[in-house]
Amino acid sequence: MTAGGRPYSDVMSHDSEAPVLPVQAFEPPYYVAVFTTVRTQDMSGYSETAERMEELVKEVPGYLGMDQAHTPGGLSITVGYFRDADALTQWRTNSEHRAAQKRGRAEWYQSYSLHVAKVERSHAFTQEES
Amino acid sequence: MTAGGRPYSDVMSHDSEAPVLPVQAFEPPYYVAVFTTVRTQDMSGYSETAERMEELVKEVPGYLGMDQAHTPGGLSITVGYFRDADALTQWRTNSEHRAAQKRGRAEWYQSYSLHVAKVERSHAFTQEES
Repeated sequence: MTAGGRPYSDVMSHDSEAPVLPVQAFEPPYYVAVFTTVRTQDMSGYSETAERMEELVKEVPGYLGMDQAHTPGGLSITVGYFRDADALTQWRTNSEHRAAQKRGRAEWYQSYSLHVAKVERSHAFTQEES
Repeated sequence: MTAGGRPYSDVMSHDSEAPVLPVQAFEPPYYVAVFTTVRTQDMSGYSETAERMEELVKEVPGYLGMDQAHTPGGLSITVGYFRDADALTQWRTNSEHRAAQKRGRAEWYQSYSLHVAKVERSHAFTQEES
């Protein structure tokens, strides 16, 4: 079952106490950018830049959403969702984003992997209230 | 730059203190399965099942690796990497995995999204020791 197009508000109505929700499953095709990082000890300026990037990416036409999880002391995974390859290219080449990438390599990331992929199948689930 | 084929040991040699490393970037094409979840309060049996699934998936021909991050009280993101669609089909239809999926929907997951995607571009980075 593909839940493409299910609106956020619909999901949220099932559990008003949930502080977070995963980005929904969209109707394929669309793109995901999976960015998996191990951070350094130097996080100065990181939060401000991350917040700015979250604002900036929303201005990209075709941007669909973003999820992030961070295990304290361990991995961080950020997944960005985009309607098409053009949207991703626009985001990748944004000059302010490029400057942040450069700073990330110099300061914040011990190592990372980036995987850009075209979604072929998607699926979403929300537990019904009993 | 694509870092497909860079061996784990090469990455690890740069920082023997790093407790974790992201799964490497492979040579495209390959597949990612992005599984983003919000957990319920009921985690009984979850850890045992998750450990068993981590063992089981390693037996799938074409399985390349897995990364996971979990924000306490927030999202969990698991990303599985597979060489081709056949490997993913074999994993998806594994009977023990199917039983775990069913239990996940009934007990462990408030909501989740799954995105299966074919990687077109990949990139990896490791900070050089200064």
